[in-house]
Amino acid sequence: MKIWQKNIDVDSFVESFTVGNDRLMDLQLAAADVLGSLAHTRMLNSINLMTDDDLALVQKELKNIYREILAGDFQIEDSVEDVHSQVEMLLTQRIGEAGKKIHSGRSRNDQVLVDLKLYFRTEIQHIIQNTEAFFNVLIQLSERYKHILIPGYTHLQIAMPSSFGLWFGAYAESLVDDLEMMKAAWKVCNKNPLGSAAGYGSSFPLNRTMTTQLLGFEDLNYNVVYAQMGRGKTERILAQGMSSIAATLAKFAMDVCLYINQNFGFVSFPAHLTTGSSIMPHKKNPDVFELIRSRCNKIQALPNEIALMTTNLPSGYHRDLQLLKENLFPAFKSLNECLEIATFMLENISVKDNILDDPKYDYLFSVEVVNNEVLKGIPFREAYRTIGIDIDEGRFKPSKEVNHTHEGSIGNLCNDQIQRMFEQVKATFGFEKVEKALEELVK
Amino acid sequence: MKIWQKNIDVDSFVESFTVGNDRLMDLQLAAADVLGSLAHTRMLNSINLMTDDDLALVQKELKNIYREILAGDFQIEDSVEDVHSQVEMLLTQRIGEAGKKIHSGRSRNDQVLVDLKLYFRTEIQHIIQNTEAFFNVLIQLSERYKHILIPGYTHLQIAMPSSFGLWFGAYAESLVDDLEMMKAAWKVCNKNPLGSAAGYGSSFPLNRTMTTQLLGFEDLNYNVVYAQMGRGKTERILAQGMSSIAATLAKFAMDVCLYINQNFGFVSFPAHLTTGSSIMPHKKNPDVFELIRSRCNKIQALPNEIALMTTNLPSGYHRDLQLLKENLFPAFKSLNECLEIATFMLENISVKDNILDDPKYDYLFSVEVVNNEVLKGIPFREAYRTIGIDIDEGRFKPSKEVNHTHEGSIGNLCNDQIQRMFEQVKATFGFEKVEKALEELVK
Amino acid sequence: MKIWQKNIDVDSFVESFTVGNDRLMDLQLAAADVLGSLAHTRMLNSINLMTDDDLALVQKELKNIYREILAGDFQIEDSVEDVHSQVEMLLTQRIGEAGKKIHSGRSRNDQVLVDLKLYFRTEIQHIIQNTEAFFNVLIQLSERYKHILIPGYTHLQIAMPSSFGLWFGAYAESLVDDLEMMKAAWKVCNKNPLGSAAGYGSSFPLNRTMTTQLLGFEDLNYNVVYAQMGRGKTERILAQGMSSIAATLAKFAMDVCLYINQNFGFVSFPAHLTTGSSIMPHKKNPDVFELIRSRCNKIQALPNEIALMTTNLPSGYHRDLQLLKENLFPAFKSLNECLEIATFMLENISVKDNILDDPKYDYLFSVEVVNNEVLKGIPFREAYRTIGIDIDEGRFKPSKEVNHTHEGSIGNLCNDQIQRMFEQVKATFGFEKVEKALEELVK
Amino acid sequence: MKIWQKNIDVDSFVESFTVGNDRLMDLQLAAADVLGSLAHTRMLNSINLMTDDDLALVQKELKNIYREILAGDFQIEDSVEDVHSQVEMLLTQRIGEAGKKIHSGRSRNDQVLVDLKLYFRTEIQHIIQNTEAFFNVLIQLSERYKHILIPGYTHLQIAMPSSFGLWFGAYAESLVDDLEMMKAAWKVCNKNPLGSAAGYGSSFPLNRTMTTQLLGFEDLNYNVVYAQMGRGKTERILAQGMSSIAATLAKFAMDVCLYINQNFGFVSFPAHLTTGSSIMPHKKNPDVFELIRSRCNKIQALPNEIALMTTNLPSGYHRDLQLLKENLFPAFKSLNECLEIATFMLENISVKDNILDDPKYDYLFSVEVVNNEVLKGIPFREAYRTIGIDIDEGRFKPSKEVNHTHEGSIGNLCNDQIQRMFEQVKATFGFEKVEKALEELVK
Repeated sequence: MKIWQKNIDVDSFVESFTVGNDRLMDLQLAAADVLGSLAHTRMLNSINLMTDDDLALVQKELKNIYREILAGDFQIEDSVEDVHSQVEMLLTQRIGEAGKKIHSGRSRNDQVLVDLKLYFRTEIQHIIQNTEAFFNVLIQLSERYKHILIPGYTHLQIAMPSSFGLWFGAYAESLVDDLEMMKAAWKVCNKNPLGSAAGYGSSFPLNRTMTTQLLGFEDLNYNVVYAQMGRGKTERILAQGMSSIAATLAKFAMDVCLYINQNFGFVSFPAHLTTGSSIMPHKKNPDVFELIRSRCNKIQALPNEIALMTTNLPSGYHRDLQLLKENLFPAFKSLNECLEIATFMLENISVKDNILDDPKYDYLFSVEVVNNEVLKGIPFREAYRTIGIDIDEGRFKPSKEVNHTHEGSIGNLCNDQIQRMFEQVKATFGFEKVEKALEELVK
Repeated sequence: MKIWQKNIDVDSFVESFTVGNDRLMDLQLAAADVLGSLAHTRMLNSINLMTDDDLALVQKELKNIYREILAGDFQIEDSVEDVHSQVEMLLTQRIGEAGKKIHSGRSRNDQVLVDLKLYFRTEIQHIIQNTEAFFNVLIQLSERYKHILIPGYTHLQIAMPSSFGLWFGAYAESLVDDLEMMKAAWKVCNKNPLGSAAGYGSSFPLNRTMTTQLLGFEDLNYNVVYAQMGRGKTERILAQGMSSIAATLAKFAMDVCLYINQNFGFVSFPAHLTTGSSIMPHKKNPDVFELIRSRCNKIQALPNEIALMTTNLPSGYHRDLQLLKENLFPAFKSLNECLEIATFMLENISVKDNILDDPKYDYLFSVEVVNNEVLKGIPFREAYRTIGIDIDEGRFKPSKEVNHTHEGSIGNLCNDQIQRMFEQVKATFGFEKVEKALEELVK
Repeated sequence: MKIWQKNIDVDSFVESFTVGNDRLMDLQLAAADVLGSLAHTRMLNSINLMTDDDLALVQKELKNIYREILAGDFQIEDSVEDVHSQVEMLLTQRIGEAGKKIHSGRSRNDQVLVDLKLYFRTEIQHIIQNTEAFFNVLIQLSERYKHILIPGYTHLQIAMPSSFGLWFGAYAESLVDDLEMMKAAWKVCNKNPLGSAAGYGSSFPLNRTMTTQLLGFEDLNYNVVYAQMGRGKTERILAQGMSSIAATLAKFAMDVCLYINQNFGFVSFPAHLTTGSSIMPHKKNPDVFELIRSRCNKIQALPNEIALMTTNLPSGYHRDLQLLKENLFPAFKSLNECLEIATFMLENISVKDNILDDPKYDYLFSVEVVNNEVLKGIPFREAYRTIGIDIDEGRFKPSKEVNHTHEGSIGNLCNDQIQRMFEQVKATFGFEKVEKALEELVK
Repeated sequence: MKIWQKNIDVDSFVESFTVGNDRLMDLQLAAADVLGSLAHTRMLNSINLMTDDDLALVQKELKNIYREILAGDFQIEDSVEDVHSQVEMLLTQRIGEAGKKIHSGRSRNDQVLVDLKLYFRTEIQHIIQNTEAFFNVLIQLSERYKHILIPGYTHLQIAMPSSFGLWFGAYAESLVDDLEMMKAAWKVCNKNPLGSAAGYGSSFPLNRTMTTQLLGFEDLNYNVVYAQMGRGKTERILAQGMSSIAATLAKFAMDVCLYINQNFGFVSFPAHLTTGSSIMPHKKNPDVFELIRSRCNKIQALPNEIALMTTNLPSGYHRDLQLLKENLFPAFKSLNECLEIATFMLENISVKDNILDDPKYDYLFSVEVVNNEVLKGIPFREAYRTIGIDIDEGRFKPSKEVNHTHEGSIGNLCNDQIQRMFEQVKATFGFEKVEKALEELVK
């Protein structure tokens, strides 16, 4: 069943090539599709394109389907092209002619557009929740281990004293900036494209402001050509937001793989959270972090993939856009899993005490010694030169006391400020407003 | 002169490899470097690491150097490694010993970090200004030509009636979403990394909140490890913001190249703004738009380049990061030029009247005809089928009247709403606060 | 069942995260895995690490399993970690203790390496076959329509006369250069990594030259550290080879989408090979070519994805590499389908006659007119200027005769030379030698 | 001076935007441009489009200009658009009217195409030479230090014994596979596009086979549409070839940065080849290798950049292609410098003895111990389990003797085979044939 079928049959080879994995992908849009239809039909009724009786029938049954979707009782049949057709078919089977009227004043194009935006909003919220859990465990570990020093490296060379407090806290603060990127993605997603039809509007007197409010969108994609142009662009921006969190996670995973290595040996995990080797009985490999790193680097490649698939396409819909779902949708799951398992692993991390007792780390304190000379009044360049000669000639003796007090330093981590920043960005998303609108719509 | 030179000479081969194009790049950081030192030295004085007399000398001369930079009278000498050394050397030449003290409590690392953030803020503001000019001309053209219809394409097939009003307006609205991405970049750039030293803080009792206020930053990069980790990440996020505007411009350029093609023939430009051919005397090529497209696609490749250069580097500074300047800095100039010349070209664009009189565009109106039947009470699927058969059998006669009234459609472009959205995003940057702080600092 | 399991259970959360989609991917390696074991065990026997009796048992049963795999009767059970374990388990169930001995002198690492190389060889051959079919139809169409002229565009502006002969033939020749890239990938794949163990070799007196010959490899990956380092690199090089074919296909698809557009109207397809629209009854959309373009652009993104996932990883195996399968393996199927459906579509293409009769194409002939003047003895620059003025003043009258005779021009396509080049590159792969060795191994 | 200038002046704003950095880039094409003209004019003479007298004049003066270019005495004047115009102008100034005739039967398009291919050939040869020098030093170091053991890592966990012999040799062998990619690039570059004019051929009876031989090309780009289509594609393939060498170098640099780190401490360099820190007097940073890594990762990003700039452009020349020079040309210099400085640094590397005496490396030998049990007749799985328990319970005692004898293992590096493979690939390029043809042309 294809709703655009006239009297010609599409060759089955072509059909299977063009449908591709779309049914599988579309399943994730099912809830969003019903939400869109709930709003659209109320609007149709308000402009006299759907009778009160039809509306009542349609709303009741769409809500039933919505509950079935949430319960996992919804499938796209093999003979049905996509989620939109499936919902419409179910509806028509159950309530008859009224079901066919839900497509009035819409094209499949704006139906997909609004489904994607609704779905992306949900996924963004999900990612933010998992990011927050990861953020919280980082802050907790930063506080818990703030007194344990580790070497700080520059150029991967032993440089200056650092601490587990700084290390965990740094990644927490990194997530704050990542949230700004997700915020931009949220703002772009939180505008209503419904009513743009095939990208050129409609002669029906649609009330797009009404569907905007019903679906809890902050604003409209006004220009109908732009509403369509948002396809591909929205995906790329969302992928860029996700790539920012992914980059933070990947870098953290790289650090963990280095610190768990026996030459560093700063952190460890219980044996049941590492994996062994088929030929080396002593191995305890950090596979989880290697896979976090790899998955997150894959996510980092996503914005470029989307750019390559959309660049130099003139305005107007192209079927090319359909394929953007295939790497993006699984990336939601993948990123969420990475965040969850990273949080889980961190809840089981052990950190090593007294790392800096090893004399190979003595040079870490050279800057401290230089600075102490400066505080005594010796010009920096002179102190630097003297200590340098001491080091070269093996005379250097470090004082291992670290007294850093300024904002964000070892002795003053400012984790409360970092938390404050996280909360501030998060608050601006306005998830509650969206949740409230959707609850209203389905109740 | 290298400030870290001890008693060993670095081989000149190695030196030229490591310095690379850095002097050329650093020149663009000169103003930012002086601003950073103006703030840093006032803070040093406040914590008694610089005397009032030294401060007065230093401030006066730094302001002189700042004016020289703005006047174009500043160079980085061949014997000097970077902009920081050049400023310090000039200062010391002019005011003696006091000049050497400006490096206290800083590392080159946090000096570069704050220079970059200050420089990026300026460049973001510059880009936003040019984006606004381009936005305004798009809105003007959208209003001016709102009654001129053009074909709307889907799948690059003639689909439904569109208009120049929709076409120009769509790209204007696209810039609104691009601004959200630039906003995220701005938020990330507008935090103070100064005081993080080499990425592990300092034993000096620095007042980082003070430099934050003096430099007009909205907040701090608190955690000093994160402040350093922001290098590369800030660049990537900014490049992602720029890539969003670039994608809009590139798509617009693709449309123009198509519409100026003789098979479409929708728009044209005066002959002196197109270029000729060495062997085809009739050619009037849209080189400007091809180069906008190409430059903007290059900018779209930038975030991925930065990701490739920074992925899988453990935390802490690596010299790799130095090279990020080389493609990013020229991209500012390139994007600004693209925005300027696109604005200039649009001020000279001619659009063709009566395009839809050509009978090949008759099918554009098939949806209108279907919808009119629906409004008369015929079910959509039935009307669709009938018109389809009319078309197949050559009986189709379009009514070419377009009566679209809903938000964002041909008859109701809502350009005022699009302008409202643009203004709203722009207002949240808070450029004035930054400008005011910097004026205060240099006066 | 995990073969490296000692007395500790790996948490199931971690397990499902680490195994990921690996079972699904590994299924494609099953045949290769058995081939590797057939060769490995014969070698073990030759160095007295497997008895003749065990060898006979093992060879017989591995060949049975091989036939089951080819027949589609092979599964990786949920309790089994990967394809290697599944094969070993089946073997042990059926022939007892002897089955356990096939792992001697191997690590899972070199087992995966050799499986991948064997699998990639098969996929490369498959792609080359499909490329050849596509090449052949392009050459046929080039010959069939060599007399039908079309406009040639530069800057997407009408430029000079071209022909369907040139257009189809150009894409055929493009595939010749793509083959050079696939050839490089083939050379890299056609070297034997077996015997490198976990990347550091083995204390067993393995005969790697013997397995090289048995498996039909052209050469060895000698250095065992390099054999492991080839993971990720081989994938990237293969993806680059595939991206070259994909780029040719994507560009061709772009041309088709443009030429099928009503403003050009150069080619068309039967209605049953295009698709319709849910709201526009006249639409015949080139979805197949849009999806070819999109899929091929996705494949073009693959080398970069692999680079991002492998860059800056130090030498030695990392679990990150496991995930490279997930986008690469499906890309084989996708590229093959694109080649097949493009071939199928071309067998059904219609081209339009007399395109150049339309007066808008008159200027195409301006160079011809200039050149004719030159052949009469007028200097080029002068002829160019005169014709230019004629055009500007509306006096230009084209002679529409095209008399191009040099190699590769409209009148002398040299398709035989292009075929000769294709054959030459293809012949250098040496597929027959590989096929013969493998037949020997399984018989 | 623009050769396509008629009676209209191009606005200077547009001119500076369109010319961009082209003069700077074009300078590198000067020698190639003269070579192309030397061949083209001899061919013009052979088909009676240039008199013998004119040919003599032109050949003599072109050879003079060629020598000036090699001597560094050639500039593109500000008033001249590109290198082609500059050469033609010089020629005309010196020999009068005859100079103007060299453009007959050519377009700027095929002139650029052939210049690029000639230039790329030279650059490929240059890169291969530097690659060979780097290869040789790796092989030398592999032989010199073949008896010095180092830990081998998998998952960055201590795994099995490796050696400097293996480590250096692995990177040498990696270059062999990289050469296959460069070979593909060479094959694609070594075909003659001259005579394709603007991409649609010419009505002149050109003899393209003759210019092919004169310029030492192996074959023609026959189809003239394909000859033009090779623009962008050739660049991408060459960038992919370069990215392969770059990936090898970047990985090697990553290893060096890790091994020079104090937690590993396997290698070191003289102090004058490392750099210091402005605040840490003990630092000896591996900046050279960080910059090699960074530059090479940048080169790895190049193929994707080119793909983004060319994807979805229909066939035929577009001005977009001009910008491909800007990142590609500097990449030649950058990659060559990386190869040269890496060779130079390796000539100065020191490696540490007796690394494995450190007890933390004892577990490296667990596989050896398992294997020895297996060689005594104990089944692998059993031996593995026993040693595993020994390790867990602290009873494990390694025998530190390593006796690996198979091909490519510690005791049998097969560097001679690796050299044989390198020579084999290199020999297939056929540089001598090209050199001989060009010598003939300019003598």
